[in-house]
Amino acid sequence: MSERSRWKRLAKCLHAARLPALLITHLPDVRYLCGFTGSSAALVLLAGTSQVRARLFTDGRYRDQARAEVRGATVRIVKGNTLHAAAEWLAAGSVPVCGIDASHTSLATQSQLTKALRTAKSKCRLRALISPVTSLRQIKSEAEQQTLARAAALGCDLYNDLLTFIEPGLREIDIAAELECRARKAGADGMSFETIVAAGPRSSMPHARASAAPIRPGELLTLDFGIMLDGYCSDMTRTVQVGQGGTLGRQRHQREVFEAVLVAQQAAVEIVRDGVSAETVDAAARKTLKQAGMAKWFTHSTGHGLGLEIHEGPRIAAKQDEPLRAGMVITIEPGVYLPGQFGVRIEDTVRVTETGCEILTPAYKGWLEL
Amino acid sequence: MSERSRWKRLAKCLHAARLPALLITHLPDVRYLCGFTGSSAALVLLAGTSQVRARLFTDGRYRDQARAEVRGATVRIVKGNTLHAAAEWLAAGSVPVCGIDASHTSLATQSQLTKALRTAKSKCRLRALISPVTSLRQIKSEAEQQTLARAAALGCDLYNDLLTFIEPGLREIDIAAELECRARKAGADGMSFETIVAAGPRSSMPHARASAAPIRPGELLTLDFGIMLDGYCSDMTRTVQVGQGGTLGRQRHQREVFEAVLVAQQAAVEIVRDGVSAETVDAAARKTLKQAGMAKWFTHSTGHGLGLEIHEGPRIAAKQDEPLRAGMVITIEPGVYLPGQFGVRIEDTVRVTETGCEILTPAYKGWLEL
Repeated sequence: MSERSRWKRLAKCLHAARLPALLITHLPDVRYLCGFTGSSAALVLLAGTSQVRARLFTDGRYRDQARAEVRGATVRIVKGNTLHAAAEWLAAGSVPVCGIDASHTSLATQSQLTKALRTAKSKCRLRALISPVTSLRQIKSEAEQQTLARAAALGCDLYNDLLTFIEPGLREIDIAAELECRARKAGADGMSFETIVAAGPRSSMPHARASAAPIRPGELLTLDFGIMLDGYCSDMTRTVQVGQGGTLGRQRHQREVFEAVLVAQQAAVEIVRDGVSAETVDAAARKTLKQAGMAKWFTHSTGHGLGLEIHEGPRIAAKQDEPLRAGMVITIEPGVYLPGQFGVRIEDTVRVTETGCEILTPAYKGWLEL
Repeated sequence: MSERSRWKRLAKCLHAARLPALLITHLPDVRYLCGFTGSSAALVLLAGTSQVRARLFTDGRYRDQARAEVRGATVRIVKGNTLHAAAEWLAAGSVPVCGIDASHTSLATQSQLTKALRTAKSKCRLRALISPVTSLRQIKSEAEQQTLARAAALGCDLYNDLLTFIEPGLREIDIAAELECRARKAGADGMSFETIVAAGPRSSMPHARASAAPIRPGELLTLDFGIMLDGYCSDMTRTVQVGQGGTLGRQRHQREVFEAVLVAQQAAVEIVRDGVSAETVDAAARKTLKQAGMAKWFTHSTGHGLGLEIHEGPRIAAKQDEPLRAGMVITIEPGVYLPGQFGVRIEDTVRVTETGCEILTPAYKGWLEL
């Protein structure tokens, strides 16, 4: 979907909802529609009968940047509150009703806007919609898919290179620091979320923060990280065994859980294609873990969409009966977490296609002893 | 303010507002009150006549982490939606009315919560409050002040060390990458915001993103960055001239603007103390820039509080008549931005005291040619 067709699709949504206007303040949505990357913005769309007119309100800090970045909208630099300026534009256009995004508008913003409209002598009512732009963002354009693929490929390269760095005795934070350093030097804008490096018993916490704990020989290490590239996120997880050690029993147990998670991950990846529901993909991973008697330790959903944000729609989880569509980019990341013992998670980012999916993170994911 | 007195003060606020309960979902507020650092949480406080009872609802990913981190609240691991679980607890306690944070509760969350209460057969009404916890966070405890001072000191060390690295020909992103690398290796958890490195004409954009543009001899370079340490943010800005070059006229102009900003920054710092209003501090910076004929190019506010978040109250800006209080930690960061030419910003983080303020970022801030 090109940028032009983004506006068109949005105009269609507004038309269907009989809404002549929409106010957007969620920054990734603003960026998606008009390219602006600043930290303060109110984007107003007026959907006329023939075309959409859009105006971006931001403050003096972003004067030059807004002019350089914004496409498809006029820019107004505001002294004071951008919401007030937006309200005045709605008032000037005698707009009777304006949509706001229920998921990204706070009660305080709603009340501020209501007051500003009253001050501007507007009779415009506000109507809450569920994520009108965020839902458009689920299906990525060709250009977005390419950027996501580049981000994922850089993530893979970083992971592959890091394997020779990892060894027993290193602390989790050393590994996180090294990875983030290398990412920055390789051209990433930064990380898309706090890097998870968790070894041994700490790997049983799915979202463990990297700690100062040193890795002991034979422990499993879960590495879950993402970079940002041109505004888009990557996301991948691998679990490896670091060195050799521990009882034979534990070694066998680790390997057994690992193989079960790998089978589950592959089963879910295999089933992904245009038209298949998200819950079906989730169920595929859960089913194989159930057969292995491990389903109760798989305590989170199977995946999520990603793009300008690390967590976007669709959710790959139970009760999500919407079909996946070609052009969606999602993660597949089942895991098994044995409290106090260890955990395993394997995650790929994949691009949904008409006939299946393309794995954007093709780094080796089989059993690995470093 | 110790953690115990945080709860006490909050209980007092609830009592004053005749609220028997409060629901908190803004993660920095949750962390502030009970120490939990996970990415999904609903914290419910029930303010009885003698004490506050608190319960944290989170999901299975954080089972172990919540048990390790949370103080002063019981933990419930929820399968499904944490809001639903919170609503059920409110229903079980026959709570008639519960406060929610207007600034951090979306319309969608409010509506979800309302439905969940109805499903739980509760008659509990929701009442929106303006940032009940965020406002408590403005005045930092001794321990918080110490952590902020450590974060700021680490920021200063990194800046001082980086001076020998900066030279003409480097790209802005090289400097950002080097700084972030060193920060991570020095023990920072990460950066508190996207590092701003802007040279020459790009320094006239107050919030420029580091670009691939190489620095030319004689250009001004603005470096605005912050690290995270134990959850707390640092923030500082320095502007330096990199090498020598350009016309004599430009050199003189750069120096003149620099000195004006420095005087403004010092004037504002000098006036900070317990009891002085934020707008007075802002006016002090603006007044000296007006005398220099540069006030119209100072296009943002003078500063902001910081702590668990990089932007917290108080705002150091016009029309902010609330007095500063000892224990607040704020930035003082006037700047002058000449579109298409160059910009200068100088920023310190300071701790407000009874008699003045302590500068937590004492790195040299006079004119510097590298």
